[in-house]
Amino acid sequence: MEILDRLQLPDDIRKLNYEELDKLAQEVREFMLESVSKTGGHLAPSLGVVELTLALLKVFDPLNDRIVWDVGHQSYAYKILTDRKNKFHTLRQYGGISGFNKISESPYDAFGVGHTSTSIASALGIKTASDMKGKDQKVVAVIGDGAMTAGLAYEAINYLGHLDKNMIVILNDNEMSISPNVGAMSSYLSRIMTGEIYTRFRKDVANIFEHAPMGSAFLHVAKKMEEGLKGFFTPGVLFEEFGLKYIGPINGHNIRDLTKALHNAEIQDGPALIHVGTKKGKGFKPAEENPEKFHGVSAFDLKTGEAVKFGKKKTYTDIFGDKICEMAEKDENIVALTAAMPDGVGLRSFSEKFPDRFFDVGIAEQFAVTYSAGLAVNGLKPYVAIYSTFLQRAFDSIIHDVALQNLPVTFCIDRGGIVGADGPTHHGTFDLSYLRLIPNMTIMAPKDGDELEEMLELSSSVDGPVAIRYPRGSADEYDFARQPVKLGEPEIISDQGDYAIVSVGHIFSESYKLYNKIKQSGNKCSLVNLRFVKPLDSKKLLEVLYEKKGVILIEENALNGGACEKIQSLLIDNGYKGEIKKFGIPDEFVPHGDIPSLRKSIGLNADYIFDIVKDLWPKND
Amino acid sequence: MEILDRLQLPDDIRKLNYEELDKLAQEVREFMLESVSKTGGHLAPSLGVVELTLALLKVFDPLNDRIVWDVGHQSYAYKILTDRKNKFHTLRQYGGISGFNKISESPYDAFGVGHTSTSIASALGIKTASDMKGKDQKVVAVIGDGAMTAGLAYEAINYLGHLDKNMIVILNDNEMSISPNVGAMSSYLSRIMTGEIYTRFRKDVANIFEHAPMGSAFLHVAKKMEEGLKGFFTPGVLFEEFGLKYIGPINGHNIRDLTKALHNAEIQDGPALIHVGTKKGKGFKPAEENPEKFHGVSAFDLKTGEAVKFGKKKTYTDIFGDKICEMAEKDENIVALTAAMPDGVGLRSFSEKFPDRFFDVGIAEQFAVTYSAGLAVNGLKPYVAIYSTFLQRAFDSIIHDVALQNLPVTFCIDRGGIVGADGPTHHGTFDLSYLRLIPNMTIMAPKDGDELEEMLELSSSVDGPVAIRYPRGSADEYDFARQPVKLGEPEIISDQGDYAIVSVGHIFSESYKLYNKIKQSGNKCSLVNLRFVKPLDSKKLLEVLYEKKGVILIEENALNGGACEKIQSLLIDNGYKGEIKKFGIPDEFVPHGDIPSLRKSIGLNADYIFDIVKDLWPKND
Repeated sequence: MEILDRLQLPDDIRKLNYEELDKLAQEVREFMLESVSKTGGHLAPSLGVVELTLALLKVFDPLNDRIVWDVGHQSYAYKILTDRKNKFHTLRQYGGISGFNKISESPYDAFGVGHTSTSIASALGIKTASDMKGKDQKVVAVIGDGAMTAGLAYEAINYLGHLDKNMIVILNDNEMSISPNVGAMSSYLSRIMTGEIYTRFRKDVANIFEHAPMGSAFLHVAKKMEEGLKGFFTPGVLFEEFGLKYIGPINGHNIRDLTKALHNAEIQDGPALIHVGTKKGKGFKPAEENPEKFHGVSAFDLKTGEAVKFGKKKTYTDIFGDKICEMAEKDENIVALTAAMPDGVGLRSFSEKFPDRFFDVGIAEQFAVTYSAGLAVNGLKPYVAIYSTFLQRAFDSIIHDVALQNLPVTFCIDRGGIVGADGPTHHGTFDLSYLRLIPNMTIMAPKDGDELEEMLELSSSVDGPVAIRYPRGSADEYDFARQPVKLGEPEIISDQGDYAIVSVGHIFSESYKLYNKIKQSGNKCSLVNLRFVKPLDSKKLLEVLYEKKGVILIEENALNGGACEKIQSLLIDNGYKGEIKKFGIPDEFVPHGDIPSLRKSIGLNADYIFDIVKDLWPKND
Repeated sequence: MEILDRLQLPDDIRKLNYEELDKLAQEVREFMLESVSKTGGHLAPSLGVVELTLALLKVFDPLNDRIVWDVGHQSYAYKILTDRKNKFHTLRQYGGISGFNKISESPYDAFGVGHTSTSIASALGIKTASDMKGKDQKVVAVIGDGAMTAGLAYEAINYLGHLDKNMIVILNDNEMSISPNVGAMSSYLSRIMTGEIYTRFRKDVANIFEHAPMGSAFLHVAKKMEEGLKGFFTPGVLFEEFGLKYIGPINGHNIRDLTKALHNAEIQDGPALIHVGTKKGKGFKPAEENPEKFHGVSAFDLKTGEAVKFGKKKTYTDIFGDKICEMAEKDENIVALTAAMPDGVGLRSFSEKFPDRFFDVGIAEQFAVTYSAGLAVNGLKPYVAIYSTFLQRAFDSIIHDVALQNLPVTFCIDRGGIVGADGPTHHGTFDLSYLRLIPNMTIMAPKDGDELEEMLELSSSVDGPVAIRYPRGSADEYDFARQPVKLGEPEIISDQGDYAIVSVGHIFSESYKLYNKIKQSGNKCSLVNLRFVKPLDSKKLLEVLYEKKGVILIEENALNGGACEKIQSLLIDNGYKGEIKKFGIPDEFVPHGDIPSLRKSIGLNADYIFDIVKDLWPKND
């Protein structure tokens, strides 16, 4: 790392010539690969923008000017080159640096992020404030073509054009979100990139010339005319109509061209959009060849690109993916939707088996839900598979378009609960709360893989909206017999002793450990798997709990508005007089890190709970 | 009503000639005006699309084909002309027909609505299902230019272009949302309407011709060239780039032109967009002259256009509007935002006094919030005023962009609680629940106008996100002395007797009546105004409540996840052993109607609660 190691970062970058910058780009890639191959992380997006990052740091002052990365998963080079090179080995680990941008982590990070499509909006806010406060700050938003599918990005461009601020939007076009992009905007961008739009213009002109008399004077005029009109036919006419000066397309791996384009954009009066073509995974062959696989990776072998170890066990995601295919075989009304994550949510196989019944709508959660409502109102049974945290974007669509009309749309909510390394922007710790307040909604949470299957089966017979919430990672399995899933009924696994544990969903893994610890300590305890947050057969639940001296409620969801509060309320409203202890996510954002560390930090594991509840039982000695 | 009264609706409309249709349009307007002048309602939007409605009903079969109205506030002519003429006098009244479209109200209503910008998404779902199920249905979405600002509409157009379905989008362009439109899209549409885009093209061409040699052969070619290129320079190039065939602009008050355009769109292979220019309030002079005032009206005098009676009392909205101006005078960091409703949320005066610190971002709630986060991160104090129900659209932005970064953005949430005639799409009955689950959020709810002022004052000193939630309508006033508002502290209005009422926000009007009824019945009762849902000085609250035999909790918000559950949970977690009774919105959607009827129907008024709680006290006789 000849150059990287000797630089005062980031200031020295401005002093480098292009040759040195090209070399530095290589060194940054090596450094990043070396480190991420051990920690895992969002490799392919970050590999794609190394040159762009260097160009930005050459042209702008990242402490005063504000560079706003969309999503933030592509900002590894930025982290390395500003102030986090020495901490980069702690990436995404408990107590280490975040995998995204975070204002509390570094003064170089202009805006915290994790979800897509916020950059233009937040950067425009930053620029507006900057102008009002008379600061001299350049503001740049870097947004991917995938993120441009989302409504929030459009709303922001619409207002940017209106405010006419001197702000730069860099459209980082790699023709992918996590998967290859879909949608009319994406195909428009690709027509620009391939020069198709300009070709079409020339063809139009040529058609007219066909009928023209020939002659050198005329040809001269025609030539002039074509050139004159070219300006009108900018490939980025769509952006120009929104009031943004279009610059591009630019080769995103040529630092010289990028720098020139940035300088060009800087001197524009009003907003400019630089359209930059990059290759996701650039510079690491396995990632270039399979950018989807290398979008986010766990530790891998640098030589082969193979993951160091692969979990063999089926994940909840796998189980959903298999089951929905099985159901679709039998019921032709079943269709499935994803918002740009066919692999993430387990719908790859469905998309291959039932291409006409599969809809990848791009990064557009609101649309996914309202569109599903339209599908449902005309006789189909949509299964909308979206991560818990991203479904937050569709909150109003769930209420207004699905639940209010009581339409049979099933939400398959992956990444419920704590997700781990992605951290607070990605934890699915609010869903049971934000769904529970919605009338007509059936909410289920399986404790294990088999239960997820049965719940999916059950969902297709519910005449109204259903949410099934399950976590990231390997599906749990238990060695005791499972009772069949019936709408609203909790599973009573054990009914003995004066105390009971009521567990909600996958955190059963800890609840069951707790139950066994209590048994091992020589005490009796009942164990209930809630299964349904709504509707809930309260009679059956009360039968078990009513006479207990104490009930221990456990969920991996915000305690505020979550399932524990509901059970507590149900118990009290029915005159229950015993003790109630609730364990869930406290009223704070959970940081990033490995799941066991995070659970420990918030007191949501068997050991912690056991220490608190063990005194409920009379001492044996 | 010569024609209207003799028709078999809607079928006979197809048999009318254009002269009769024009006459019918006049009759529908008269009928509508006559009726809405008594009931109130969304007059101006509905007056604007009478001809469009007739053209749709002439060309399509509204029972089989599916006409999807965006928002639905413009569908009065549609209601009258399909199957609700005889019920039209019950518009927006308790038990009467809805002010919007509703699938449970009529088979002619294709999709339920109330919020904007859902029509293209839902219509595309309907069309997709229709094709899959082999139905022969034409599907039309009618969307306003205001609604085109919202991200959901863009997401839908993006996917419509991708799926390339034979579907018609009618862009009803009246250059207004409720107020005049803002944003780059709106100015683009207006450039089309005024012919500016075509003029610009001709000027470009003319510039080139200047340098050309003159001669008749050349001029002939030039003419041909201009015509040939015109096709390429369609005024709707932006929509064409998204894969929609652009048809227009069309005069939206000419039924013949509209019908022709619809037939033209029908025969397109793929999606078509018809750009229709209409006048909001068309045919009623006071509404044409002041479409904003007549967007939604209460009963008015048909001759003068004057409202029959005007409430003289200040509303909560007025109080917010005045107070925020006063605060902005003193603190130059205060800026205010609205999403297309400067009048609705009370920011008209602010916008005039502080034009540079006021941002109407159009119908774009997500953007409003993420943009505010950008403003806040760079030193400003944004006040975002949005109706409770519309803020649902920004749920993820509140969590991800504001709360997670703990930024000082204050949400001024108007129309909290039951709003009345607008019904279930517009009630603000979920906000306390969906906000309470968000960490870092301070949530206040004033019981009266003075308290709202004090809470606004307090908000500017809170270092983090704040939500202040208040209802539609006249601000309450009380004759007892008010204790100053302090962060987290409930107001203890009375502490006596064995029972206590804890009231949350404006429903205090009923709680206070209840309190007085109890006193009048000869019993003692404590009365607490909660003020803060988060943070909450639980010590102070417990001091009052702990020794009581019973606590009565009252809020006008979903009981699921609301403030009552929180207080109940707080009491129980602290070992409270008395009775707790909760009164709020049950787990169902509240219909439309006058507020007293609605409160009665869900058991949320003083009389109902008194009947239930009166037996708590020992009989006096």
